[in-house]
Amino acid sequence: MSRHTVERVKTGIPGLDDLIEGGFPRGTTVLVTGPTGSGKTTFVAQFVYKGAELYDEPGVIVTLEERAQDLRREMMNFGWDVKKYEEEGKIAIIDGVSSAVGLPSEERFALEEGLNIEGFLRYVYRVVKTINARRLVVDSIPSIAIRLREEHNIREVLLKLNTILLEMGVTTILTTEAEDPKRGKLSRYGVEEYVARGVILLDFIEKDVELKRYLLIRKMRETRHSMKKYPFEITEDGVVVYPSGEIY
Amino acid sequence: MSRHTVERVKTGIPGLDDLIEGGFPRGTTVLVTGPTGSGKTTFVAQFVYKGAELYDEPGVIVTLEERAQDLRREMMNFGWDVKKYEEEGKIAIIDGVSSAVGLPSEERFALEEGLNIEGFLRYVYRVVKTINARRLVVDSIPSIAIRLREEHNIREVLLKLNTILLEMGVTTILTTEAEDPKRGKLSRYGVEEYVARGVILLDFIEKDVELKRYLLIRKMRETRHSMKKYPFEITEDGVVVYPSGEIY
Amino acid sequence: MSRHTVERVKTGIPGLDDLIEGGFPRGTTVLVTGPTGSGKTTFVAQFVYKGAELYDEPGVIVTLEERAQDLRREMMNFGWDVKKYEEEGKIAIIDGVSSAVGLPSEERFALEEGLNIEGFLRYVYRVVKTINARRLVVDSIPSIAIRLREEHNIREVLLKLNTILLEMGVTTILTTEAEDPKRGKLSRYGVEEYVARGVILLDFIEKDVELKRYLLIRKMRETRHSMKKYPFEITEDGVVVYPSGEIY
Amino acid sequence: MSRHTVERVKTGIPGLDDLIEGGFPRGTTVLVTGPTGSGKTTFVAQFVYKGAELYDEPGVIVTLEERAQDLRREMMNFGWDVKKYEEEGKIAIIDGVSSAVGLPSEERFALEEGLNIEGFLRYVYRVVKTINARRLVVDSIPSIAIRLREEHNIREVLLKLNTILLEMGVTTILTTEAEDPKRGKLSRYGVEEYVARGVILLDFIEKDVELKRYLLIRKMRETRHSMKKYPFEITEDGVVVYPSGEIY
Amino acid sequence: MSRHTVERVKTGIPGLDDLIEGGFPRGTTVLVTGPTGSGKTTFVAQFVYKGAELYDEPGVIVTLEERAQDLRREMMNFGWDVKKYEEEGKIAIIDGVSSAVGLPSEERFALEEGLNIEGFLRYVYRVVKTINARRLVVDSIPSIAIRLREEHNIREVLLKLNTILLEMGVTTILTTEAEDPKRGKLSRYGVEEYVARGVILLDFIEKDVELKRYLLIRKMRETRHSMKKYPFEITEDGVVVYPSGEIY
Amino acid sequence: MSRHTVERVKTGIPGLDDLIEGGFPRGTTVLVTGPTGSGKTTFVAQFVYKGAELYDEPGVIVTLEERAQDLRREMMNFGWDVKKYEEEGKIAIIDGVSSAVGLPSEERFALEEGLNIEGFLRYVYRVVKTINARRLVVDSIPSIAIRLREEHNIREVLLKLNTILLEMGVTTILTTEAEDPKRGKLSRYGVEEYVARGVILLDFIEKDVELKRYLLIRKMRETRHSMKKYPFEITEDGVVVYPSGEIY
Ligand SMILES: Nc1ncnc2c1ncn2[C@@H]1O[C@H](COP(=O)(O)OP(=O)(O)O)[C@@H](O)[C@H]1O
Ligand SMILES: Nc1ncnc2c1ncn2[C@@H]1O[C@H](COP(=O)(O)OP(=O)(O)O)[C@@H](O)[C@H]1O
Ligand SMILES: Nc1ncnc2c1ncn2[C@@H]1O[C@H](COP(=O)(O)OP(=O)(O)O)[C@@H](O)[C@H]1O
Ligand SMILES: Nc1ncnc2c1ncn2[C@@H]1O[C@H](COP(=O)(O)OP(=O)(O)O)[C@@H](O)[C@H]1O
Ligand SMILES: Nc1ncnc2c1ncn2[C@@H]1O[C@H](COP(=O)(O)OP(=O)(O)O)[C@@H](O)[C@H]1O
Ligand SMILES: Nc1ncnc2c1ncn2[C@@H]1O[C@H](COP(=O)(O)OP(=O)(O)O)[C@@H](O)[C@H]1O
Ligand SMILES: [Mg+2]
Ligand SMILES: [Mg+2]
Ligand SMILES: [Mg+2]
Ligand SMILES: [Mg+2]
Ligand SMILES: [Mg+2]
Ligand SMILES: [Mg+2]
Repeated sequence: MSRHTVERVKTGIPGLDDLIEGGFPRGTTVLVTGPTGSGKTTFVAQFVYKGAELYDEPGVIVTLEERAQDLRREMMNFGWDVKKYEEEGKIAIIDGVSSAVGLPSEERFALEEGLNIEGFLRYVYRVVKTINARRLVVDSIPSIAIRLREEHNIREVLLKLNTILLEMGVTTILTTEAEDPKRGKLSRYGVEEYVARGVILLDFIEKDVELKRYLLIRKMRETRHSMKKYPFEITEDGVVVYPSGEIY
Repeated sequence: MSRHTVERVKTGIPGLDDLIEGGFPRGTTVLVTGPTGSGKTTFVAQFVYKGAELYDEPGVIVTLEERAQDLRREMMNFGWDVKKYEEEGKIAIIDGVSSAVGLPSEERFALEEGLNIEGFLRYVYRVVKTINARRLVVDSIPSIAIRLREEHNIREVLLKLNTILLEMGVTTILTTEAEDPKRGKLSRYGVEEYVARGVILLDFIEKDVELKRYLLIRKMRETRHSMKKYPFEITEDGVVVYPSGEIY
Repeated sequence: MSRHTVERVKTGIPGLDDLIEGGFPRGTTVLVTGPTGSGKTTFVAQFVYKGAELYDEPGVIVTLEERAQDLRREMMNFGWDVKKYEEEGKIAIIDGVSSAVGLPSEERFALEEGLNIEGFLRYVYRVVKTINARRLVVDSIPSIAIRLREEHNIREVLLKLNTILLEMGVTTILTTEAEDPKRGKLSRYGVEEYVARGVILLDFIEKDVELKRYLLIRKMRETRHSMKKYPFEITEDGVVVYPSGEIY
Repeated sequence: MSRHTVERVKTGIPGLDDLIEGGFPRGTTVLVTGPTGSGKTTFVAQFVYKGAELYDEPGVIVTLEERAQDLRREMMNFGWDVKKYEEEGKIAIIDGVSSAVGLPSEERFALEEGLNIEGFLRYVYRVVKTINARRLVVDSIPSIAIRLREEHNIREVLLKLNTILLEMGVTTILTTEAEDPKRGKLSRYGVEEYVARGVILLDFIEKDVELKRYLLIRKMRETRHSMKKYPFEITEDGVVVYPSGEIY
Repeated sequence: MSRHTVERVKTGIPGLDDLIEGGFPRGTTVLVTGPTGSGKTTFVAQFVYKGAELYDEPGVIVTLEERAQDLRREMMNFGWDVKKYEEEGKIAIIDGVSSAVGLPSEERFALEEGLNIEGFLRYVYRVVKTINARRLVVDSIPSIAIRLREEHNIREVLLKLNTILLEMGVTTILTTEAEDPKRGKLSRYGVEEYVARGVILLDFIEKDVELKRYLLIRKMRETRHSMKKYPFEITEDGVVVYPSGEIY
Repeated sequence: MSRHTVERVKTGIPGLDDLIEGGFPRGTTVLVTGPTGSGKTTFVAQFVYKGAELYDEPGVIVTLEERAQDLRREMMNFGWDVKKYEEEGKIAIIDGVSSAVGLPSEERFALEEGLNIEGFLRYVYRVVKTINARRLVVDSIPSIAIRLREEHNIREVLLKLNTILLEMGVTTILTTEAEDPKRGKLSRYGVEEYVARGVILLDFIEKDVELKRYLLIRKMRETRHSMKKYPFEITEDGVVVYPSGEIY
C-alpha cells in the first residue's frame, strides 16, 4: 500500500496554508471558534470569496446571524466584489435571518420558516448543487441550534450535520462561539469541537492594556500542523496571518 | 467595483470618534456593556442628546430602568437642556417604567402594559417616525427581556430586535449588564454581544485601592478600530474619553 | 437653562458626606451591600437615627431580619436613644419578623402575614405618612424577597419597590448581601445594584491575618463621588469613615 | 439615657472571652461554622459542659449528626464527666439521630419521627424548661434542614428557629458546614450567617504541608471584637485559643 | 471519673498507626477519599487483609465497583493470599457488581437486585455475623448511592448507613471520590465527610512534571492525630506511609 | 501462594510499554481521555492496528464519532494498511455513525438504530467472536451515552459496559473527553475514570505560545507505572512517546 496523500484546499487566508500542509483536507469540516469580534465571519467569508476569486471554486454562505445585505456590505468593505460572483453563479448567500424574524426575504436564496435539521440540510444541498459549490460555510452553529430549536440535543444534530456535509463532498467551515477560550472551553456547547474534523481558534490576548489577535490550530485531522499561537490582523483586505510574528 | 465606504455617525462622546474611523457606521446597532455605575446610561443619553444638539439628528430614548423624570434630571445635571429638545421634537423619551410597575404615566411617550416584542417594536417605530429619529437607544436589554417575559429565548428576541432596528435605518445603542468582564463574560445572557454589530465595554480597573474607568471597543464591524483600553471620565459635562491617556 | 443642582441629604455617617458632594441626592434609593457582619444594619440604623437626632428628619426602619427589640438594643448599645425618638414620633420601626415566624407582634408597627409587594408598599407608605418620614430603610432585600415569595421575579419586584419609593419622595436605603464582592458579584441576586440609584459596598480585606473594614462608593447617580476604598470602623458611637486613611 | 451594657456569657473556651468583651451577649444566637473536623462539635459541647461545670448554667445539646453515646464518649475523652451533670440535671442531650434512622432510642431525651420545625422547637423548649437551661446547642443546621425536609426554604426555617430561640432567652450556638471558607462561602446554604447574631469560623490553613487550625470571629453583634485569625488547638482538655499566637 | 481511653484497631498500613495514637478507634467509621487511582481500594483491601493475617480479625469487603475476581487478583498481585483466608472464613467478599449489571454471581456472597438501604444493611449484617467480622469496608459510597437509587437524599442514607454500622460494632471504612481535593471539595456529594467519624485523604501532588502520592488525616474523632501531608507509595506489598518523608 | 503475575498486552505505542511493566494487563479496560485533537482516536486506532500487524491479535474498532471511511483514511495516512487486515479478518470496524444520522451503512459491520446498551453489547460481542478479537476500542463514551440516550444514568451504563467487556476477555480501550484536565476534571461525566481499570491522559501544555503534547498514566491497576508527564508526538507513523524527553 502506498501512503495515502490528502488533497488540500487553499484557504484564501494569507499565511495560513503553510501552517497546515497547504490547506484544509478536501471535503473536511472545520470549526472556527472564538469570542465576539474575533474575526470568524470575516474568516469564513474570505474562504468562500477567495475560493471563487482565486481558485475557481464556487461557494455557499449560510448566514444566520447577520442579514445577507450586511454581510455583503462588509465583504465589499474589504474590496471583495461579492455581487459580481453572485451574478456569475460562483457565490450563493443563503439568507437565514429573514424568516427567523418574520420578515419576507428579498434574497434569491433564503431559508423557510419552521425547518428541522433535515429540511435545513436539504435546502443547503439544493443550493450547493445549483452552483456546483465546492466550499460551504455556516455562520453559526448556535444560530442553527436556536433556529431549529435543537439546543437540547445539539450533539446529535451536529453529528448529523457534519456527516451529511461530509457526504456532500464540499469543504465546510462552521463557526461557533467561545467566550473565554483561556479557560479551556472552546465552544458554546462544549461539544462542537469534538464533532468537527478541524478546529481553528481566533482569539484575543491582552498585552499592555491592548488586545492582540492570535490564531491557533487546535486540531486538523490528517494534517501535520503547527500548534503555535500566531498573530493575525484584520486588514483592509481581510484576514492575514503572520507565521513569523510574535504575539508577545 | 470601487471599495465601499461607510458613512459615519458622530457619537457625541469627546475622544471616541477618532478611535473608530470617525464614528459608528450609519444604521448600525452597538451594544454598550459594563457593570453597574460604569456609565452606560450617561453614554447613551449623551449619544442622543449630542445628536440633537450638535448634529441635528433627532433621537429616541427608551428608558426601562429609570423613570423618565430621573433620567431627565440626570441629563440636566450634566448641563444638557433635554426639555428644550423634547419640546422642539428633537428628542423623545419613551417611559418604559410606569406601566411595568402599574402606575399611570404622565409622559407623552410611554409603553403600554402587556406588550410582546412585536408590539414593543411597533411602538418604538411609531415614535421614531413621529420625530424622524436618526438615533435610538434602548436602556436596557435585561429590562426588556424581563418586561416582555422573554428571558428564555433571549437570543431570538435579540435577533428580531436587532434586525428590525437595522431595517428602520436608525443608528441604535442597546445596553446590557456585565458583572465581571475580566472573566470573559461580556453580557448578562452571554449572547447580546454576538447579535450586536458593535460592542463597547465600559468598566473599572483597580489601581492603588482606587477604581479607574476605562473604555474598550471590543467589536465594530466595518471599522478599523483601536483595541486599547482607554481611560475615560464622567465629568460635569458627561463622558469624556482620553485617547492618549494611560489607565495604569 | 441653568445647570440643575441636586439637594443633598446628610447621611449621618462621619466622613462619608464629603465623598459624595455633601450627601445622598434627596429622594434617591441607595443600596448598601456587603457580607455578613460588614456593618450594613449599623449603617442604615445610623442613617435613620442621625436623621432624627441631627437633621430633624423623621425616619422609618423596616426590619425583616432582626426582631425590633434586638435592633433597638443594638442601637442603644451605640448610645443612641432610639426609644425617645420613637416616642416623639420621629422614628418608627416596622417589625417584619414576628408575623413571618408566626408570633404575635408587640410592636406598634408590624407587617401582617401573607403580604404581597403591593400590600407591603401600602403598609410602608402608611407608616411613612404617619410620622412624615423623610428617610426610610429596608433591611434587607433578600428577606423581603423570601417573605413575599418573590425570589423568582426579583427584578420586577425591585423595579416596583424602587419606583414606588421614589414616588414617595423619601430617601431610602435598601440592604442586600454580597458573599464575596472581590469576585465581582455585588449582591445576592445579581440585579439589586442595577435597580438602585446608588451602591455602597461595605467589605473586609485581609491584611496580616487580620480583617480590615473598607467602604467603596460603587455608584451614585447625579454625584461626582470618590472611587477609592476607604477604611472605616464600627466604634462605640457607630460607623465612622476615614477619608484620609489607608486600608493597606 | 445611659449607654446600654450587654450581659456576657462566658464561653468556657480558654482564650476566647477576652476577644469578645468577656463572652457572648446573653441570650444571643451564634453560628459556629467550618469544614469537617475543624472542631465545631468539640467547641459547642465544651460551651455546654463548661457552662454546667464552671458557671452553674444548665445546658442542652441537640445532636443530629452523632449518636448521643458517641458524643458522650468524645466528651469523656476530654476528661469531661458529662454523665455526672446529666444525672444532676445540669446537662441534657437530645438524641436526634435514632428516630432519623428508624431505631428506637435508649436516651432520656430524643426527637420523634416526622417532626416539623414547630414540633422540633416545642420539644427543645420542653427540655430547656425541664432543666432550666441557660445554654443550648444544635449540631447541626444541615442535619435539621434535611431531617425536617426543609432544605428548599431554609432561610425561613432559620429565621423561625433563630427568633424562637431568642424568645426562649437561652444563649444558643448553631453549627453549620463551610467546605472552603477561603472562597467566601461561610456556610452550606449561604444564608445561615445572615440570620445568626454572631459567626465564628473554625478553619484550617496550610503551612509547610501541615494544616494549622485558626479561629476567626466574623461577626458578633453588640460586641467590639477582634478580627484576627487566632491559632487554636484541640488539646486533651478540649479547645484552647491562643490570643497571642501566630498562625504563620 | 477517670479519663476514658479509646481502644485502637491496627490499620495494617505500615507507618499509619503511629500518626493516629495507634490505630482507628475501635468500632468507628472512617472515610477514605481521593481521586481515581489514588489507592483507596488498595488501602481498604489491605485493612481487611492485614486484619485477618496479622491481628486475627475477620473482615468483610463489599465491592461495588470492581468484580470480586478482579479485586481478588489485585490483592494476590500484592502477595496477599486472600483465597486462603476466604476459605478459612476470615475474609468474605460481597459481590455487589453482578446483580447490578444483570449477571448471575458465582460468588458465595453477593447482593441481590433491587435492594434498598435497609435490605443492603441486612445482608451486610448477616455476612458480618457469619464470619464474626470485626472489620468492614464498603467500596464505594457513590456506587451504593447509584445502585440503591439514593443520590437525591444521600445524606440521610449515609446517616442511616453510618449509624447502623456503628451499632454493629465493626470498624468500618467507606470510600468516596474527590476529583480535586485542593479546591476544598473532599467528596463526591460534599456530605460524606461530615457523616463519617474519620476522614483520610489520599491524593496526588505535582512536582517537576511528576505526580507524588500523599496521605492526610483530615479528621479522626477521639484522636490526637497528625495534620501533615505524608508521602506514601503503593509498593509491591501494598500501601506504605513514610512518616518522616517529605512530599516536596 | 506464589505471587500472581499479570500477563501484559503490548500497546503498539512506541515508548509506552516500558512505562507500564510491559503493556496493559491482559483483559483490562483502559480509558484514554483528553481534549479535542489530543490524539485519542489515533492512539486507539494504533492499538488495534499494531495488535493485528505486530502481535497477531485481531481487533475491533467501534467508531461512533467519525465515519468508518474517514477513520480508515486517517489510518492509511499514517501508512497503516488497514484494509488489508480488514480483508484478512484481523480488523473489524463497526460503523456507529450511519444509523445514528439516518443513513444506510455501506460497511460490513454497522450498529442498528434504536439500540439499548444490551443490544449494543450483544452486537459488539458478535463481531468480537466473528474475528476472534483480542482487542477492542470504543470511540467514544459520550457518543454511546448520547446514542443510547443514557446520559442520565451514565455510571450504571459504564459499570455494565465495563463488566461485560471484562467478561468477554478482550483488552479494551474506551475514550472520553476532558476539556480542561488541569482543573482536575478528567472526563466529560466525571465518572468514567472511576469505572475504568486504567486511565491515560493525553493533553496539551502551553510553552512559549506553543502547545506541546504530553501523556500521563493516571491509573493502571495491577501495575507499577510511572507517574510523570511524558512528551509525545503524532508523527507520520502515528503516536510516539518519549520516555526520556522533557515537556518543559
Ligand atoms: N475594514 C476593517 N479594517 C480593520 N478591521 C476590521 C475592518 N472591518 C472589520 N474589522 C474588524 O473585524 C471585526 C469583526 O469581525 P467578524 O469577522 O465580524 O468577527 P466575529 O464574526 O468573530 O464576531 C470588527 O470588530 C473589527 O475589529
Ligand atoms: N455630575 C457627575 N460628575 C461625575 N460623575 C458623575 C456625575 N453624575 C454621575 N456620575 C457618575 O456616573 C455614574 C452613573 O453612571 P450611569 O451612566 O448611570 O451608569 P450605568 O448606567 O452604567 O449604571 C455614577 O455612579 C457616578 O459615578
Ligand atoms: N459596640 C461595638 N463596637 C465595635 N463594633 C461593634 C459594636 N457593635 C457591633 N459591632 C460590629 O458590628 C458588626 C455587626 O454589624 P451589622 O451592622 O449588624 O452588620 P451586617 O448588618 O452587615 O451583618 C459586629 O459583627 C461587630 O463587628
Ligand atoms: N483527644 C484529642 N486530642 C487532640 N485532638 C482531638 C482529640 N479528640 C479529637 N480531636 C480532634 O478533633 C477533631 C474532631 O473535632 P470535631 O469537633 O468533631 O469537628 P467537627 O464537628 O468540626 O467535624 C478530630 O478530627 C481531631 O482532630
Ligand atoms: N503492584 C503495584 N505496584 C505499584 N503500584 C501499583 C501496583 N498495583 C497497583 N498500583 C497502583 O495502584 C493504583 C490503583 O490503586 P487503587 O487502590 O485501585 O486506587 P483507587 O481505588 O483510589 O482508584 C494504580 O493506578 C497503580 O498506580
Ligand atoms: N499525519 C500527521 N502528522 C502529524 N500530526 C497529525 C497527522 N495526522 C493527524 N495529526 C494530528 O492528530 C490530531 C488528531 O488526533 P486525533 O487522534 O483525531 O485526536 P482526538 O481523537 O483526541 O480528537 C490532529 O489534530 C493533528 O494534530
Ligand atoms: Mg460573526
Ligand atoms: Mg444605567
Ligand atoms: Mg444586618
Ligand atoms: Mg461535628
Ligand atoms: Mg477503587
Ligand atoms: Mg477522536
